[in-house]
Amino acid sequence: MNYPGGVRKSDKNSLKEIHCQNRGMSLEAEINDSNDYYRSIDKAFIYKKPTPIQITKVDYPSRDKALIKEAFFTIPSTTDYNGLYEGKYIDFEAKETRNKTSFPLHNIHPHQITHLKNIHLHGGISFLIVRFTTLDETYLLPTKDFLEFLESDTRKSIPHSFFQEKAYLIKDTYRPRIDYLKVVDSLLEVYQ
Amino acid sequence: MNYPGGVRKSDKNSLKEIHCQNRGMSLEAEINDSNDYYRSIDKAFIYKKPTPIQITKVDYPSRDKALIKEAFFTIPSTTDYNGLYEGKYIDFEAKETRNKTSFPLHNIHPHQITHLKNIHLHGGISFLIVRFTTLDETYLLPTKDFLEFLESDTRKSIPHSFFQEKAYLIKDTYRPRIDYLKVVDSLLEVYQ
Repeated sequence: MNYPGGVRKSDKNSLKEIHCQNRGMSLEAEINDSNDYYRSIDKAFIYKKPTPIQITKVDYPSRDKALIKEAFFTIPSTTDYNGLYEGKYIDFEAKETRNKTSFPLHNIHPHQITHLKNIHLHGGISFLIVRFTTLDETYLLPTKDFLEFLESDTRKSIPHSFFQEKAYLIKDTYRPRIDYLKVVDSLLEVYQ
Repeated sequence: MNYPGGVRKSDKNSLKEIHCQNRGMSLEAEINDSNDYYRSIDKAFIYKKPTPIQITKVDYPSRDKALIKEAFFTIPSTTDYNGLYEGKYIDFEAKETRNKTSFPLHNIHPHQITHLKNIHLHGGISFLIVRFTTLDETYLLPTKDFLEFLESDTRKSIPHSFFQEKAYLIKDTYRPRIDYLKVVDSLLEVYQ
């Protein structure tokens, strides 16, 4: 028998997942978890990129061991996540905010915006995932709508009402935790 | 007037590039350089992923500065390069060998092989770029042919003759330094 959200009663992990859902798990952890799930069912191959750093000192305690002794975080030139779904190139950045009324734009670097735009203009699917943690709402904002806001508005944050109007609310599910590809499905229908 | 390889005489960098070409530049540097070039002409958006590391100690010398004091290199779960070209998802790993007769397979991690296979099976374009540095030959080996070798052969290295027979030789050009997308163009023709 199939339960809503595709969770089978026999699934030994389902109960645990229902209880833990959205309790203190970061957006990043939930996306990584969802990507693991998508891979496990052969649905999509989307990964978080490693954090970009500049290494300035390395020690070699033994011949084939390298230990980084000094490094700095550097500004990413692209987004955090990319991969393949339904033969399409997928690319997105994910951010959380504790703000209730708007999403501050300083969260997104200018070259990340350029990157999202390039992907959008060249046949890829790019977007932002933004979580308003206090409101417990997670939205997928397509790059097209994000750019329209930037071009028509000079404010330094995107109002929550803009998300309500233009973005897609990603519903909580059991598995994957955050089923953003369901929204991508509807984007693919629009674009094709 | 157009010179072979599309280099114009008026191009102030061309002479320098001709002289420096393939003189001590690593395959990685040449690919990064080519990807920069592809981006600059709006042709493709392909990036090298940051090196995956596990951070174990971080110092905060000031409020908004973080200094990594200890970290380790970790095994990558995917390949080094991915991105978007002609609406297609592109994914590859690049390796150099000083061997003249074969390419040792221990250069590629098992989960990288799995990843290349997944991309190939789900509508992406994935491949290896292998440079025989001593022979000054650089090949693009499509995942399909790479997998055929792995399935039909138990040797721990791929003979140079296999590359000559199955892979595509990437010709040296002035700009980009290594025009691997030219080979991808012919792959796209085959697959479509």
